[in-house]
Amino acid sequence: MKRPTILVLGAGYGGLSTVVNLQKSLGTDDADIVLINKNDYHYEATWLHEAAAGTLTPEQVRYDIKRVINEQKVKFIKAEVKGIDVKEKVVTSDAGTHTYDYLVISLGFEGETFGIPGLDKYALSIANVKAARQIRDHIDYQFATWSLEDEKDDSRLTIIVGGAGFTGIEFLGELGNRVPELCKEYDVPAEKVRVICVEAAPMVLPGFDPELVKYAVGQLEAKGIEFSIGTPVVEATPEGVKIKKGEDEFEFIKAGTVVWAAGVRGNRLIEETGIENMRARVKIDKDLRAPGYPDVFIIGDCALMINEETNRPYPPTAQIAMQQGDMCANNIVALLKGQPTAQFVPDLKGSVCSLGHDDAIGVVYGKKLTGTKASFMKKVVDNRSLFLIGGLGLTMKKGKFKFF
Amino acid sequence: MKRPTILVLGAGYGGLSTVVNLQKSLGTDDADIVLINKNDYHYEATWLHEAAAGTLTPEQVRYDIKRVINEQKVKFIKAEVKGIDVKEKVVTSDAGTHTYDYLVISLGFEGETFGIPGLDKYALSIANVKAARQIRDHIDYQFATWSLEDEKDDSRLTIIVGGAGFTGIEFLGELGNRVPELCKEYDVPAEKVRVICVEAAPMVLPGFDPELVKYAVGQLEAKGIEFSIGTPVVEATPEGVKIKKGEDEFEFIKAGTVVWAAGVRGNRLIEETGIENMRARVKIDKDLRAPGYPDVFIIGDCALMINEETNRPYPPTAQIAMQQGDMCANNIVALLKGQPTAQFVPDLKGSVCSLGHDDAIGVVYGKKLTGTKASFMKKVVDNRSLFLIGGLGLTMKKGKFKFF
Repeated sequence: MKRPTILVLGAGYGGLSTVVNLQKSLGTDDADIVLINKNDYHYEATWLHEAAAGTLTPEQVRYDIKRVINEQKVKFIKAEVKGIDVKEKVVTSDAGTHTYDYLVISLGFEGETFGIPGLDKYALSIANVKAARQIRDHIDYQFATWSLEDEKDDSRLTIIVGGAGFTGIEFLGELGNRVPELCKEYDVPAEKVRVICVEAAPMVLPGFDPELVKYAVGQLEAKGIEFSIGTPVVEATPEGVKIKKGEDEFEFIKAGTVVWAAGVRGNRLIEETGIENMRARVKIDKDLRAPGYPDVFIIGDCALMINEETNRPYPPTAQIAMQQGDMCANNIVALLKGQPTAQFVPDLKGSVCSLGHDDAIGVVYGKKLTGTKASFMKKVVDNRSLFLIGGLGLTMKKGKFKFF
Repeated sequence: MKRPTILVLGAGYGGLSTVVNLQKSLGTDDADIVLINKNDYHYEATWLHEAAAGTLTPEQVRYDIKRVINEQKVKFIKAEVKGIDVKEKVVTSDAGTHTYDYLVISLGFEGETFGIPGLDKYALSIANVKAARQIRDHIDYQFATWSLEDEKDDSRLTIIVGGAGFTGIEFLGELGNRVPELCKEYDVPAEKVRVICVEAAPMVLPGFDPELVKYAVGQLEAKGIEFSIGTPVVEATPEGVKIKKGEDEFEFIKAGTVVWAAGVRGNRLIEETGIENMRARVKIDKDLRAPGYPDVFIIGDCALMINEETNRPYPPTAQIAMQQGDMCANNIVALLKGQPTAQFVPDLKGSVCSLGHDDAIGVVYGKKLTGTKASFMKKVVDNRSLFLIGGLGLTMKKGKFKFF
């Protein structure tokens, strides 16, 4: 009898969790496990704001996939997925075609610019490790050029961050620490630098406890970061962004760097599968399968799951993606054994939003935290991702131990 | 009786040598020594190619001027010199006007683009520490962008170095070591990168021993560096450079980075003084004074001195500039005491051209050297500059001890 093929697309939190749990549960003869990923490394998507600000190096936020997979059991293919045919059960990539018996789609998020003109072209995005690295180098280059040029264009030193959600605030927190270093490195007077957060919604960090949000904004403002809230970006140009301040009131902010950190969506390939979706996210069944496709699991940022307590979707977090990967592996093993699948219920331990390496806000096991305590917990969370996927060895090598 | 004022313009090798020797020879009541420099730091101009390639940080190639001057004896003014009136004996800077009894012009070099269209605008230049830093960041940004972009523009990874003289070759040597690191850091396949040296003259490193030049070119070619010799750059554009390959034959080389390292001249302010000059270099008297201006000394890159053995000018080197600073201080002290001045004769200990941190070519005390021996001597030379100006403390702090 031919061994069934389990094909996992993407080596993010969800995909890697699935694979490492499958290789624990299955013997070499039980199934062919195939993992396809664009890069030969996994990156910590929740640490990208640090690579973008330059407070961590790109190397610090990624590790080789081969460090965590058992190559006796898992075949890794470095390739970019180009198409998913869930009817014919074939995936195409730039390395060829791949058939499957069970498919796990864990392709992660893409940035969403909501059709705002110019953003795609002129704004940078913290989308992956290469994009984060480009943001760091772009900011460095602006500072270097300002420092060198005779007629100084101060707008080179203006950084606009679009979005006051989780990613935007964490990136601002890093910039708050990084800008003084940049000023020193590049001989730039601190008062020349502007960091402005522009947000369309009337609030910062929607969904977070208001008291914690107030603390976060206060801490960031103390570092010189400006907030423009309730003022949507309506256009981006090579010179900066136009924001809407009132009914017929607009302002153009000149800026050498515009980073768009507002809004994510699922992977565009989902939209071509024919599976019903919203912005490439699929409202999955409780056992993580795509409705109508019992051999297709969708987890992580491409999966949509409603929190019945709040009647709103769970946010696309690493925590949930890893739990889904765990459960996804268990359910595939169950199907292989002809057993019933289990239902996924997120185990929400809390949420911590960092404000630089030394400050944070968060709710952990129902307890509100700020400052170094919250920051400590953030590092526990970050190291936990490493531990769950790669064990102690990986955690020792790539973990954040500054505070330990 | 009013103390005479000695005004030194520029804190490069020549200016700082003058000041540290003056402060050793003169008591606080003997003279007012004033040093004006654009930055509050001195940088090692002979190490700039390393900062430009990214093999040394900008911090490693500069140090605070206050580390080496005695503030009891020397008044340091951070200001940019705007004009020199040698008839009225007044210097103007962005900090005001400055009178003098003795003036030392040690303002260093500027890049010379020989009127080639586009070079001023589109080529980068290793002119100072800020310019070197911008080159490093520019190259980083090109690699980051190539790595990120979907439709890859390979010309981003082409670096053209204009000039196969001392600076050009030393910069190429650093690039030879740095490019493999960049490829690793930015996930770029090495075969995509091109580094091309374009030189108008029919030879590399004119004036150097031909056997050593052959060694250098071979070593650089082994690192993948291409040479286009006897092919002048005739135009630079935002996309690259046009070179002349024959009577009516031209080639356009697309390149994301163009660094112009061919040709230096003296400081443009010299041309406005009315003192006879060639490309802002003054053929000085043997005691280092400007002809016809017995109170004006000119040393370093703005000074022109003919080597009577070869009937050609001595090259503008750090070695000669520091010896001139030494002698300049002695001659000013002599004038203050009503004694005759001495004549300057360079004591040429040799010349070493580095080919990266681990290789070099050179002639030291008449002996030809290549490889690690030459590289060792290069570091001795570099540390010697620190020692002569700042003593053991500065050498310990900023010296190149990798090989020691």
